Amino acid sequence: MYGMIGKITAAPGQRDALIALLLRGTEGMPGCLSYVVAKDAADADVLWVTEVWDSAQSHQASLQLPAVRAAITEARPLIRGFEKTAETVPAGGVGLPA
Amino acid sequence: MYGMIGKITAAPGQRDALIALLLRGTEGMPGCLSYVVAKDAADADVLWVTEVWDSAQSHQASLQLPAVRAAITEARPLIRGFEKTAETVPAGGVGLPA
Repeated sequence: MYGMIGKITAAPGQRDALIALLLRGTEGMPGCLSYVVAKDAADADVLWVTEVWDSAQSHQASLQLPAVRAAITEARPLIRGFEKTAETVPAGGVGLPA
Repeated sequence: MYGMIGKITAAPGQRDALIALLLRGTEGMPGCLSYVVAKDAADADVLWVTEVWDSAQSHQASLQLPAVRAAITEARPLIRGFEKTAETVPAGGVGLPA
């Protein structure tokens, strides 16, 4: 499995709009086992994306899906910063295949 | 919903043993919507825990479950460092209830 933890800083006041974009078109992404978009509880401009895929290839391929490309294009102006906090190798857990 | 992203540094050579402990007894934790234990892809001693709960109360209550308490007690000697990277308010995503 392949995992990623990303920290995104939204343009001021744009976090909710950005979250809506990031959640749009995420159904039916082949190989996606978990994809969570969450507000940082302390910083009103920060959100976190934590992802688990069956492989790094599936993750890469998802970036070419029309719905994902459109969402990324629309989201760009709302993003002030992006930090890839970690790339991971998920070992297991609740909500993942055993 | 309540979410947490934690970075754990294992004692040298103890990451796999620690992962096994952290995954043990995680089935059937009331209110747990997602709980992923993952190796950092770059640092051989680091692992990440990303969690989503239906509420902060459910997360707190889980820490009192016998299986979780036992796992934490056994895990302590294998942990060199713990950093709560973020507490979050999950907005949605793949693998979570709509």
